This record gives sequence, C-alpha cells and structure tokens, in this order.
Amino acid sequence: MAGLHVRSVLVTGANRGLGLGFVQHFLKMPNPPQWIFAGCRDPKGQRELQNLASKHPNIIIIQLEVSDPTSIKAAAAKVGEHLGGSGLNLLINNAGMAKPCSLDNETPENMIQVYTTNTVGPLLMGQAFLPLLKKAAQETPGSGLSCSKAAIVNMSSYAGSIEDMYVWEFGQVVSYRCSKAALNMLSKCQSLAYKEHGILCITFHPGWVQTDMTGGPPLTVDDSVQGMLKMLSSISEKETGAFLDWEGKVLPW
Amino acid sequence: MAGLHVRSVLVTGANRGLGLGFVQHFLKMPNPPQWIFAGCRDPKGQRELQNLASKHPNIIIIQLEVSDPTSIKAAAAKVGEHLGGSGLNLLINNAGMAKPCSLDNETPENMIQVYTTNTVGPLLMGQAFLPLLKKAAQETPGSGLSCSKAAIVNMSSYAGSIEDMYVWEFGQVVSYRCSKAALNMLSKCQSLAYKEHGILCITFHPGWVQTDMTGGPPLTVDDSVQGMLKMLSSISEKETGAFLDWEGKVLPW
Repeated sequence: MAGLHVRSVLVTGANRGLGLGFVQHFLKMPNPPQWIFAGCRDPKGQRELQNLASKHPNIIIIQLEVSDPTSIKAAAAKVGEHLGGSGLNLLINNAGMAKPCSLDNETPENMIQVYTTNTVGPLLMGQAFLPLLKKAAQETPGSGLSCSKAAIVNMSSYAGSIEDMYVWEFGQVVSYRCSKAALNMLSKCQSLAYKEHGILCITFHPGWVQTDMTGGPPLTVDDSVQGMLKMLSSISEKETGAFLDWEGKVLPW
Repeated sequence: MAGLHVRSVLVTGANRGLGLGFVQHFLKMPNPPQWIFAGCRDPKGQRELQNLASKHPNIIIIQLEVSDPTSIKAAAAKVGEHLGGSGLNLLINNAGMAKPCSLDNETPENMIQVYTTNTVGPLLMGQAFLPLLKKAAQETPGSGLSCSKAAIVNMSSYAGSIEDMYVWEFGQVVSYRCSKAALNMLSKCQSLAYKEHGILCITFHPGWVQTDMTGGPPLTVDDSVQGMLKMLSSISEKETGAFLDWEGKVLPW
C-alpha cells in the first residue's frame, strides 16, 4: 500500500465482513492511520472488533446506524471531536443490506428498507462528513484528487450493473439491485459535486466475497480488501466517479 | 401507428402532460383501443380528462395513487372487472414526480418519497397487473414479444443515465436521478422475469418535454408521444429490456 497514506479513515459496518477486513488491513499498514473510526450499529455486541480496539488505541468504535439521520449526525459530531480540528481523509460507506426476494415477492417495505440503508445512508453520510472531508482536502498538499487526500468510497455491487445483470439466475433480489444501481448514480453525483472540494468519489464491486450476507463462494475478504486498498492507493482524478471491481476493472453501469 | 393494435391500455398519471398526451393519441388511432384506462390520483379534479371521457366512452377513468399499494390493488380489480375476462395489452407507467434539490440539500424524506412514486410504484403496478398482462399475451396469436400483445412501458428519464449525467448543470435532482436509475434497473429485471410470460418491457426517455413538471424547452408533448408510439409499434423481443428515447435511440445506462 505504498501509495495510500491516510491519517484518518471511517469505515461503516465495521463489525464484520468487508468492513472488519478494512479495519484489519489498515492496522497492518507500514504507516497505519492515526484514527480508524469503526462504525457499527451495536458496538457492545461486537467481540472481534472490541478485542481489536483493546489492543490498538487508534481504533475508535463509533455507534452508527446509517438508516438513521440522527445517528449519522451524532457520529459526525463524535468523529469531529476525536479529530480535534483535523479532517477525515477517507470515508468508506461499507454498511449495506440485502433481502433475498424474487420480483414476484418483492414488497414496498423491502424496497424502502434496503434503499434507506444502501442508498440514502451513503447520501447522508456524505453530507454529514463533508465538512471533515473538505478539511482533509485543504490540509493535504497537491492539487489533484487522491484517496490519501480526501475520498468517499461507496461499496456497491456488480449486481447493481443494469448492463450486465450479474448473477440474475442466482438471485433476482430486485430491492438490492435497484438500491445498488441508485447508489452508483449517487456516487456519480457525489463525484461531480464534490470534485471542486478536492474529494474523490468511487463505487466498488468487492467481488463475490464470503461474508455473512453472501454465504459460500471463492474470493476471501482478505483478497478483496487487499485488492481494493491497492486500487485506492493508485487512483486519481481520472478515476473519480468510476465503478470499479476489487481488481481495478471498470464495470458497466 | 400501423403496427400498434391494442384492445386495452392503462396509462398512469393520465390527467396531464405525457399521460394525457398518450390518451389523446390512442383516441386518434385508426383503430382506437376498446378500453383506455386513464389512471389519476384525483379523478374529480381533472376537467380535461373528464371532458374527453364524456365524449369517448372507451376512456375509463380509474382512481390510482401509485405510491399506495392498496390503491394499486383496487385499481387492478376495477380494470379486471371492466375487461371482463380479457387481458390488458399495455401498461404505461407514466406517473412520476421530481423534487428540485441540490446534493447538499437533498433529504431522506425526498429520497424516499420520490423513490416510492417513481420506482416502487412501477414495481407494484407490474405485480398487480401481471395476471391481466399474462392473459393478454395468451390471447394474442404469435410467439414473439410485441406491444400489441403485452407490454410494460416505464417512463424513465435520460437524467437516470449514470453514464451521461444528462443536464447535470441544469439540476442535480439527486433523488430523481437515483429513482430513475433504479427504475431502469427495475425495468431490466421485469424484462428478464416477464419474458417467459410473453410480456415485453422497456424504459423510455420521453425527451425534454414541456410539461408542468419540467417547464420551458423545445419538444412538445405531441411530438414526444407520437415518437414513442411509433417506437412501440415497431419494437419486438430484440428490444425488450432496452432504454430508448422517444426517437428510438438506445441510451446508455
């Protein structure tokens, strides 16, 4: 990760899966961040994250429910206090959810709940943390965009690609696909609106990863996170607004 | 419109703009539909539509609020009664809304309200009218897909294209863009799931049309609707799942 040097990062949904993987990989960097904010809904119930935080004082666990605007505002205030005047370099909107459902069985409740967490959450996170991200961009020398300076990383999914309809045969999950297509749109909007503030924005497909949410198949959390961090270390203003997979391949919308 | 022969069509948001334009153009066809169901939220307040219906008994005004699942179910039951055993050939999901807002001012309430009307509405409409659409597909001879047989037409917008970010400088309207990107995804899902039932599904950009919603510029409702009907008369299974503009140009997702 020679190219990625962040003083501060916030990862949402940091208690397990990819979120926890990001926290672990940041800890292992030659120059780990001074602040690793680990957002999770229920900090008390998270043994693995609590253990890690007890050994590494640079991990700060933050109570955060991304479907709740009040919780987001409180988290932004708390992160701001810890940073004490410094900015936040990297916001990783990783928290997400899925409801397995076919098109025929999809409900309005599912649609709204999944959209609220997967799409509205990252919108509100971007708004709430914008002042801290701007501050990080201003603090960091150089005119271009980079993830070491200030960036929003939205964890999307190839299942949100309208062009390719990835793993349709495996699961229709319409509420999830719609929320991720919308998240990709949000990410593009953020990239256009936040560019003038020096903030890079991208959206990732992490691969078909073994997590509690997806079950089974090939790619490990470690490989996925390592791939994404490698990408984050190398991208610049050319890539802002892009939809990339964990190996850096540009995906169709 | 030599190629478009439907016995029955339902247009949502039929009281004004493009919806009313569709109703008027169907009436002018050499062989007008036997049933033109004109869905609108508040039938009583719609003088233009009421006048039209008083002169043309094939127009049946249906109370329909697409953000309300109960209203959708009641409308499907009513349409079914009128059809008395026949199927519904064409469902035009035209009702939609926008909230002018910049990324910075976007609210969760806007995001959910616009998504509920623009994305969840068309999902529920598809589910509720599926039995009638299937019936129309079974009644109509021929093995391929066509709009004269059974089709769902979702009125989207080029503003929902993540690739092109149409008129970004004119308006960020993030809640609208996200809802239309999600609608495009829904439309693709419907096209894949409903193909086996003989139902064609497409999503349209109607052009930058003069309506109450958009204000000003060039294209008239008449030109837009005429263009779209021409497209509907010619498309087949090759186009199912596509994102087209009113002139038939394939748009990027």
